[in-house]
Amino acid sequence: MNELSLPESPHPRVVIIGGGFGGITLARKLRGRHFQVVLLDRHNYHTFLPLLYQVATGGLEADSVAYPIRKIFHRQRNFYFRMANVERIDTDTRNIITNAGTVTYDYLVIATGSNTNFFGLADAARHAMQLKSVPHALDVRSLLLQNFEKELAGAEKPDGLLNIIVVGGGPTGVEVAGALAEFRAHVVPSDYPEIGKSRVSIRLVEASDRLLGAFATRSGKAARTYLEELDVDVSLQTTLKSYDGTVALMGDGTEVHSSCVIWCAGVTGDSPTGLGDHVLDKNGRLRVDGMNRLKGHEAVFAIGDVALMETDKDYPNGHPMVAQVALQQGRLLAANLVRLTKGQKTVPFRYRELGSLATVGRNKAVAEFPLAHFRGLVAWLLWMGIHLMQLVGFRNRMVVLVNWVWSYWSYDRAIRLIIRPFKKVN
Amino acid sequence: MNELSLPESPHPRVVIIGGGFGGITLARKLRGRHFQVVLLDRHNYHTFLPLLYQVATGGLEADSVAYPIRKIFHRQRNFYFRMANVERIDTDTRNIITNAGTVTYDYLVIATGSNTNFFGLADAARHAMQLKSVPHALDVRSLLLQNFEKELAGAEKPDGLLNIIVVGGGPTGVEVAGALAEFRAHVVPSDYPEIGKSRVSIRLVEASDRLLGAFATRSGKAARTYLEELDVDVSLQTTLKSYDGTVALMGDGTEVHSSCVIWCAGVTGDSPTGLGDHVLDKNGRLRVDGMNRLKGHEAVFAIGDVALMETDKDYPNGHPMVAQVALQQGRLLAANLVRLTKGQKTVPFRYRELGSLATVGRNKAVAEFPLAHFRGLVAWLLWMGIHLMQLVGFRNRMVVLVNWVWSYWSYDRAIRLIIRPFKKVN
Repeated sequence: MNELSLPESPHPRVVIIGGGFGGITLARKLRGRHFQVVLLDRHNYHTFLPLLYQVATGGLEADSVAYPIRKIFHRQRNFYFRMANVERIDTDTRNIITNAGTVTYDYLVIATGSNTNFFGLADAARHAMQLKSVPHALDVRSLLLQNFEKELAGAEKPDGLLNIIVVGGGPTGVEVAGALAEFRAHVVPSDYPEIGKSRVSIRLVEASDRLLGAFATRSGKAARTYLEELDVDVSLQTTLKSYDGTVALMGDGTEVHSSCVIWCAGVTGDSPTGLGDHVLDKNGRLRVDGMNRLKGHEAVFAIGDVALMETDKDYPNGHPMVAQVALQQGRLLAANLVRLTKGQKTVPFRYRELGSLATVGRNKAVAEFPLAHFRGLVAWLLWMGIHLMQLVGFRNRMVVLVNWVWSYWSYDRAIRLIIRPFKKVN
Repeated sequence: MNELSLPESPHPRVVIIGGGFGGITLARKLRGRHFQVVLLDRHNYHTFLPLLYQVATGGLEADSVAYPIRKIFHRQRNFYFRMANVERIDTDTRNIITNAGTVTYDYLVIATGSNTNFFGLADAARHAMQLKSVPHALDVRSLLLQNFEKELAGAEKPDGLLNIIVVGGGPTGVEVAGALAEFRAHVVPSDYPEIGKSRVSIRLVEASDRLLGAFATRSGKAARTYLEELDVDVSLQTTLKSYDGTVALMGDGTEVHSSCVIWCAGVTGDSPTGLGDHVLDKNGRLRVDGMNRLKGHEAVFAIGDVALMETDKDYPNGHPMVAQVALQQGRLLAANLVRLTKGQKTVPFRYRELGSLATVGRNKAVAEFPLAHFRGLVAWLLWMGIHLMQLVGFRNRMVVLVNWVWSYWSYDRAIRLIIRPFKKVN
C-alpha cells in the first residue's frame, strides 16, 4: 500500500482519527503548537449530532447541522485533513492503514466516537433505522415520507405503514418521538388530509421503568407527561425482541406491524482494529488511564465516547458518552501532549458536568444544571440558545435560526423532500 | 395490477404527469374548477431547475431549490398527489400504468419535461455528470469535492482529478462554469492550500462558434469575456467525442484527462411510452396542436419541454425548452380544459417571451428583455431578484437570501459536504 501524501515536518506528528467533538477540539487546541496535526475522517464534515433528529423529522436541512472540516481549520497552518477510512492500526510500526494509503504517527489519538448498540439483535440491526450520521438522518426522513406516500398510493401495501416505533427512552429517543408527534400534529393534517393524524401512531419503547434515566426523576416524569400530551404512546418496561422490517415482536409477546423502527436504545464504542483485546471493554470502548492513554501503548490515546476511563473518582464506571466529555478530554489532551513533549508532568482528567438538556417539542423541554433544574418554556428556550451557540459557523446559526423561527410561527416542518428514496434491505 | 387508490368524484379526472413548472401551474389554475386533479411524479417535490447549478457548486442547500408538492396544494380541495413512476400509457382504455398501480383518466396531460441529450454518445451518457434533478446536483457536488480529497490523499490516484470539463455553452453550461470558477477562486485557496487554485483547470466546451446561442450576439460575447476574466478556458467550435470516465477525447483528436465532465449540451423530450410513434418527433418531443392536444388523441395533452408545437407563427420549429413556455402553456391549458367541458371554443397558444437571463458570477450576468438588454451588475441584480421571486415558499426565499448575502460578503460557497460519496460506474 502506498503512503498517504503529507508534507515533511520537523515536528512530531499527531494523527487524530475522527472529526467529532473530541477530535475537532483537540486539533484546534494544538494550533500554533509544535506538532504536525493530521485529522482523518471518512466524512469531510463535522456533524452536530444533537440536532440530527431535526434533520430526520424535516425541521432542519442536513447542511445546517454539519460543517466542512477544512473550513474549521483553514487558518491553522499545522493542520492537515485527509478523508480516509481507517482499516487497521499497527502499533508496532506506528502505522495507520486506511483505504487511501498508510500514514505513520508519533502520537495517535482515537476519537472515533460510538456506533448504535443493537444489543446483539441481528434483525433489528439490519432493518431498524438509526441516527448516528447525516445519511442516517436523511434515510429516516425519506422512509417516513415514503411510507405516507405508499399508504396513499394504495396498491399492494404492507400493514403498519403509519406505525412508527422509537426504541429507547434516553434524550435521543425522547427528542425523536416528540419531533415525530409535532410532525403528525401539524404536517399530517395539511399534507395528508386523506390520512388524518388519528391513523398515525407513535410509540416510544423503553426497557427500564422511566424515561431519561441519566436525568433526575422529576425530569423523566416531565418528559413522559409532555410526550403523552402529544399523544405519544409511552411503553415503559418494554423491550423489542425482534424486528424483520414489517413486524416488531415485543418482550411481552405482542406483535406490532411497523414499517419504521428508529433505534435510539444505546451506543457502543467504535474502536478501530489492531489495538489488542486487552484494551477493549465489553462495550467496545478502549480502556485509558487518567490522561487518556491506552494501557500498554506509550503513544496511543483515546478520547470521547470510545474511551473508558475509570480513574475519575466521581465516575468509577467511566464517563457518560456525551459531547461534553469529548470536548473536555480533547481540550485537556492538547495541553497534556504539549506537557509531554516538554517533559512536564501531565494533568489527570476530571469531568466537570455542565448540565443536560432534552427537548420534547414546542415549549416542552427539561434542563438540568448543577445549580438549578428547569422545565417547560424556560428549558426550551435554554435548549435553543445553547444549541445555537454551539453550532459551528455563523451561516449555519443564521439558517437554523430562520428555520426555527419559521417553524415556530407556521407550525410547519418545511423540509420534507424524499431526495433519495430509502431502499429497505430484504 | 391493482388500481391506485383515489376517491370517487362526480367530476372528470385530469391526470397530470410531472410536477415541473408546467404541471404545477396547470394544477394550480384548476383550483375550484369542476375537475378531480391528480398529479403524478416520481419525486414528492417540485424542483426549481434554474438554481440547481448552485446546489452542484455548494452555493445553496438542496432543500431550498426544491419544494414539497403537497405543501403547494394543501389548500386545494380538488387536488390529489400520488408519488409514482409512470411505466406506460394505454390510450385505448385510458389507463396509466405506474409502479404503484393503475389510474384511469378523462383528460391526460403530459408535463414530463426533458432529459439530458447525450447525442448518442453512450460512454458520455454513462460517465458524464448531468444537472436535471436534485440527486444529480448533489452527485456533482460530491464528485467535485471527492476529487479534491483524492488528490490530497495521494495514493494511487488517477490523472486529471483537478480538471473539470463543462460541455455546452448555453445558459446552464455558462452558469456552471462561472460558479466553478468562483469556487476555485475563493474556496480552493482557503480549503485546499496544498493544492492551490492554479492547478485546477475549468474548461467550457461548445460546438458552435459562440456562447449563449439563444441570446443576442453581444450577450454571448459578454459571457465569454466574463468567463475568461475568471480564468475559464472557453473552447468554441469544439466537441467532445468520447469520455470513458478518465479521458475525454475532443473532436480535434486531443485527449484531456478529467475525472469530472459535466454535460449541459442539450435536452431531449422525456416522453412516456405507449402514445405511438406518429406523435413523437426525432428529439423525443410530442407533436401537439395549438391547444397542446396530441395529434390523434382526443383526451391527451402535452405541455412544456416535452411538447412540440409548430403552429405558433413566431416559432415554426417549436418553442424553446424553457420554464416560461411551460408556465404559459399550463396556464392556458387550464382555461382551455374549462372551455372544453363547457363546449366553448378553445384559444390557441401564443408564446409571449418575457426575457432571458444568465449569470456567470458576482456582478457578472446578461439579461435580455423585449425593451432592453443589460449586462454586468444590473443584470446580476435583476437575475437575483427575479429568481428569488419565482422560488416557491417564503421559507425558501429567506434561506436562499441568507445564503446569497452570506456568499456575497464572505466570498464563500459554504455548503460543501460530501453527504453521499458519488460512486462512478465502471
